Amino acid sequence: MLKVGILGLGTVGGGVIKILRERSRDFKNIVGEEIQLVKVMSRRDHRLAELGIDRSLYTDSFEEFLNEPMDILVEAIGGEAPADVVKRALEKGYKVVTANKALLATQSDELMGSEYGEALFFEASCCGGIPIVSSFEEGLMSNKIEQLLGIFNGTCNYILTEMSKGGVSFDEVLKVAQELGYAEADPTFDIEGIDATHKLCLLGSLAFREKVDFSKIPVEGITGLNPEDFAWAAENDHVIKLISMAERHGSELFAATFPCLLPSNHPMAHVNGANNAVFVRGEYTGDLMFYGAGAGELPTASAVVSDILAAAQGKVRHWSHHIFREPTFAKLSAEKPFSYYLRLKAKDEAGVLAKLCDSFGKRDISLCFVHQNPAPQGLADIIFTTHPTSSAELMEALNEMAEQGWVSGKPFMMRMLEI
Amino acid sequence: MLKVGILGLGTVGGGVIKILRERSRDFKNIVGEEIQLVKVMSRRDHRLAELGIDRSLYTDSFEEFLNEPMDILVEAIGGEAPADVVKRALEKGYKVVTANKALLATQSDELMGSEYGEALFFEASCCGGIPIVSSFEEGLMSNKIEQLLGIFNGTCNYILTEMSKGGVSFDEVLKVAQELGYAEADPTFDIEGIDATHKLCLLGSLAFREKVDFSKIPVEGITGLNPEDFAWAAENDHVIKLISMAERHGSELFAATFPCLLPSNHPMAHVNGANNAVFVRGEYTGDLMFYGAGAGELPTASAVVSDILAAAQGKVRHWSHHIFREPTFAKLSAEKPFSYYLRLKAKDEAGVLAKLCDSFGKRDISLCFVHQNPAPQGLADIIFTTHPTSSAELMEALNEMAEQGWVSGKPFMMRMLEI
Repeated sequence: MLKVGILGLGTVGGGVIKILRERSRDFKNIVGEEIQLVKVMSRRDHRLAELGIDRSLYTDSFEEFLNEPMDILVEAIGGEAPADVVKRALEKGYKVVTANKALLATQSDELMGSEYGEALFFEASCCGGIPIVSSFEEGLMSNKIEQLLGIFNGTCNYILTEMSKGGVSFDEVLKVAQELGYAEADPTFDIEGIDATHKLCLLGSLAFREKVDFSKIPVEGITGLNPEDFAWAAENDHVIKLISMAERHGSELFAATFPCLLPSNHPMAHVNGANNAVFVRGEYTGDLMFYGAGAGELPTASAVVSDILAAAQGKVRHWSHHIFREPTFAKLSAEKPFSYYLRLKAKDEAGVLAKLCDSFGKRDISLCFVHQNPAPQGLADIIFTTHPTSSAELMEALNEMAEQGWVSGKPFMMRMLEI
Repeated sequence: MLKVGILGLGTVGGGVIKILRERSRDFKNIVGEEIQLVKVMSRRDHRLAELGIDRSLYTDSFEEFLNEPMDILVEAIGGEAPADVVKRALEKGYKVVTANKALLATQSDELMGSEYGEALFFEASCCGGIPIVSSFEEGLMSNKIEQLLGIFNGTCNYILTEMSKGGVSFDEVLKVAQELGYAEADPTFDIEGIDATHKLCLLGSLAFREKVDFSKIPVEGITGLNPEDFAWAAENDHVIKLISMAERHGSELFAATFPCLLPSNHPMAHVNGANNAVFVRGEYTGDLMFYGAGAGELPTASAVVSDILAAAQGKVRHWSHHIFREPTFAKLSAEKPFSYYLRLKAKDEAGVLAKLCDSFGKRDISLCFVHQNPAPQGLADIIFTTHPTSSAELMEALNEMAEQGWVSGKPFMMRMLEI
């Protein structure tokens, strides 16, 4: 008999209990012994009846929970990271299965990097039901990964998909997303790109086999986008996605999360709604893409249960000893030139466009597309796209325009990705 | 030191040797010891110099090769299956890595089903660099899989992609594909759907955890397609793909390979050129898709090398003991209704369309789309599409039309898939 304890009876914990019960006979066939729930810990006991959990298994105390002998501890509390409990469980020799990306991304050296790291399973931490963590542990192991692109946040992708239908503002769509349960009451973690960047750190570390440090990754969310940007994208065969990117440049890594324009024939351009996708360019495999539901009760719980089964079969996680310690890349967020999309409000006066173009030109920033619309209050809306350029040069040009008073407010800039 | 022997120095074997050499230092870090090539066996020795293999490692004898002590044997001969060598290697306690889907699909019970099956690694047998085999072994393990769809043959997908550009016949495109190396001189295995069905058997067995028997799967290739079908597809927002499908219906399984029409918003509709894709509908994960290069020297070799590393890390394959023995499905290829696309030549006479429609109608086959074009020799080209119906009823209707002399030649029928 395999003893499992579950920490947290929220969406994921509840889903795990449902799946374990529904398929207990199949799982006994797969692992050769029965999987038995021996303890649950939760701050509140209100879901016990609904989930069919015997009250004798319940505790609201971490100590009591940890004192229960078990083979596998499932950490499904999330959010405020119970790092201490996870560490103590690993030290006691329990295998730990977690979906807690915030915990893993910010404390990877103490968890996966510890001497117990090979007993820590975290398929569910990234992209729900997409088996991307085990793919890096297994089928992709021989590859030198060159590029990792992710659509890692279902909330953002839902909002961007809705905005691409046209004519609705970010705030309007966010409100609907909250009503439908696609966005939290406080959506900051999602819409500011933090959640996506946690996943970038985890999957980036696995893909490049070197620790990618969360605190060093530039993060930009989707709140600056407006309907005009989506109209431009639609007219010009592009889509807008929140992309988390990591790319090897010799001994440096470019890693960042940002909204960006993808050509509509990019494999990631068709990933719509609350779905997630991971695009991997391997030295030997070439381009691969993985696609599916990135969150939700059952997709995430299914990944937790797959990890329980893997742990029950005696599998261990081999990467722990190699990565997740000190970052070894010479530099994270190496400078990488991109083409840019720029939207700004300029004074609607003779000669202004020439001044702006001059600011670009003298820095060798080559323009690709220019469109000007008249706007009220003597201001003109201008959209530029550039050929590949450094972001530093571009910022310098935009600062010069602002200092000279030609541009009003903060220009909006967004990277463009090629295939 | 980990001793590896390689059987076969063709495309895959050569690729494996290149990758092992190129990344030997990284691999030593990953598995903790050096991977050493100790023996190669090949009928001819002409690639030794090009691959930088010391002649002392070479033999053209299976016996001599098998007598060399080694930890891992890579079987990269393919085609005519060296089943006996693989079995003897497993019995000697060697771990075996193979890309040979024909061997595995037709002799799975003796290989994966044997007591040594957990030492047999075959990620490379399906879909080149896409880590789909390990995904079924790991991240998807908790799921009850409901549907598996595959674009499993790059040659067919290349041909279909080219034909979708319009106006070219199957034979013309096949000739170009052969010139470009996308199709073999004898393309039967690919274009008749046999190769795709081998993969369906393997992945179907993993997905549904019951042996899917190759000999019982109906297989249809792509040779019956003509430019008219692609024109209809383009006008009606569909694409044509060779699909291998397995779907659970209670205790029965529907399993088959066939060309079919997919709506252009189906995730598999964007898979073009020589790429492969796997679509999985799991009870808990929902819809997932995996996409990438399905063949080629380095993608396939990368999967072989990932298996070498997994074997070197002491991993074993846990499914062997559960599946790949006797089929346990009550029935393979359960009856499943589909919508159908039909193209036939009918006599261009008054009342004939009524007769045809009557043959459909009296069997409750409901028509969805009808288009008739006049053609020479008193014949009319007619295209029908139906609402979902049983193939038996449809065949009956077509037989009746032929018997009554209204239809000339063999009608072409093709399934249509919904999302």
